[in-house]
Amino acid sequence: MIPLPYRWLVSCHIHHNGKYFLIDCGEGTQIALEEAGINPGRIDVLMITHFHADHIMGLPGLLMAMANKGKKSKLTLIGPKQLHAVASALCVVCPPMPYDIEVIEMEGGESFILDEVTIESMALSHRIACLGYRLTVNKKPVFSPEKAQSLAVPVKYYKTLHAGKSVRLPNGKLIEPEMVIEKKREPIRLCYCTDTLPIPEIAEFAKDADLFICEGMYANEEMAEKMEEKHHTLIREAAALANQAHAKELWLTHFSPAFKHPEESEEYARSLFPDAKIGFDGMTKEIK
Amino acid sequence: MIPLPYRWLVSCHIHHNGKYFLIDCGEGTQIALEEAGINPGRIDVLMITHFHADHIMGLPGLLMAMANKGKKSKLTLIGPKQLHAVASALCVVCPPMPYDIEVIEMEGGESFILDEVTIESMALSHRIACLGYRLTVNKKPVFSPEKAQSLAVPVKYYKTLHAGKSVRLPNGKLIEPEMVIEKKREPIRLCYCTDTLPIPEIAEFAKDADLFICEGMYANEEMAEKMEEKHHTLIREAAALANQAHAKELWLTHFSPAFKHPEESEEYARSLFPDAKIGFDGMTKEIK
Repeated sequence: MIPLPYRWLVSCHIHHNGKYFLIDCGEGTQIALEEAGINPGRIDVLMITHFHADHIMGLPGLLMAMANKGKKSKLTLIGPKQLHAVASALCVVCPPMPYDIEVIEMEGGESFILDEVTIESMALSHRIACLGYRLTVNKKPVFSPEKAQSLAVPVKYYKTLHAGKSVRLPNGKLIEPEMVIEKKREPIRLCYCTDTLPIPEIAEFAKDADLFICEGMYANEEMAEKMEEKHHTLIREAAALANQAHAKELWLTHFSPAFKHPEESEEYARSLFPDAKIGFDGMTKEIK
Repeated sequence: MIPLPYRWLVSCHIHHNGKYFLIDCGEGTQIALEEAGINPGRIDVLMITHFHADHIMGLPGLLMAMANKGKKSKLTLIGPKQLHAVASALCVVCPPMPYDIEVIEMEGGESFILDEVTIESMALSHRIACLGYRLTVNKKPVFSPEKAQSLAVPVKYYKTLHAGKSVRLPNGKLIEPEMVIEKKREPIRLCYCTDTLPIPEIAEFAKDADLFICEGMYANEEMAEKMEEKHHTLIREAAALANQAHAKELWLTHFSPAFKHPEESEEYARSLFPDAKIGFDGMTKEIK
């Protein structure tokens, strides 16, 4: 929540099949992207959780870095109501961008689809309007050439069937997609929730997430009252949500600057949720 | 002008006798201060040269960092006309600060005095209104106890005389400050000019500067036309200004991101102005 030399502000970059997404953009995010070798000019969708400085102050610099990298394609900017007004105010110091920006304001419950990726929002419980985001990659089922051959389906129909459409063969036989499918594939789910009280709706939102990224501002139980007052989440509460959600993995993030060594609490976090990890700058994961 | 992992945005922190000053505040400045062990909560005067993102985008984060460090005393914020409006727009994401902020808008030519330090502004020539700053520390002359003793001045009058006031001794004799002064001391001058065309007025503004910090965006002469169009300064032009100003030392800064290794141009810069140095992150100097 406050950038430290060894721990900058929280931001999450996602890449799937040629599409690039970023959640949150505090001060310094453009530098962190550069350090990670990520080209900001390729980002298609930028989601902002809320309008506290540590989540949005890097926006103008990032928009300008995108332009500098030659971005020409549209950027979709998603965030809470008033996003257009807030972004416009922050960009008072920016020249016009050489690409279009589509601003989508959400209250929670809306979704946005880009190719295989569905982005859903959820209203969290912070001191100001704040959104959680769930990205779901809906993978096509595995096609079975063997089943297609056994039904004498010509190869030219494979692509149509794999895309989920029925075809009628020249002999009049109707082939439906399910008849040539080996198996359905589970979607990939990533869920990102910060800053918020640990409201029970989050467990439903993060259900079966392959990766649940959640605020864990303190390990210290003595901070519980303050966290409730400030609308933040403790590591214990994040772990409880991950358990209820049956998440496959939990990444803890958004530590208080007073919480200097969160890595020392990894064992504690794992005692509450076995696949918990303490976040650190540059942490990456490939989900298949 | 664009933050790189190994070279962040330009900013200058000055400390004199318990007073703290900062010039420019691009994205990441609060992190750079933290890395340098500088407490942002102690900054008394913050000067902004102009409203391009690389010089001001770190303002909201820095103001919040000051609050977080417990700042209670007034902050004086100096910058071009419209400073109040621009700063207010950027601070749309900030809570009210627990300290007063005095906003002073300048057009060039005005000055502001804090204790021994006089801040003067100059209108530079950039694409938008831009100010150069000169900080002058007016040191008290060296007091001579020997001269005071030879005039039989009681010790209790030393402080008054050193502060520049005459005293009349009990015997009726008038002692004037000049009578007990060893020598006058030259003021200390620091001059900071970026972003600008190398207009000749800068040489006058930087006259006799102990440290002249100047933009030197490129060493490459082929960029001369583009620099004139974009209203920036080449290393050669900065060196010429330093020579005309009889500056004691020149620090070059504000390199183009395309100028990846300015340190390799130090010899070139020194061939033009012997006491030229290529700026780098964390560069410091004590001026006595």
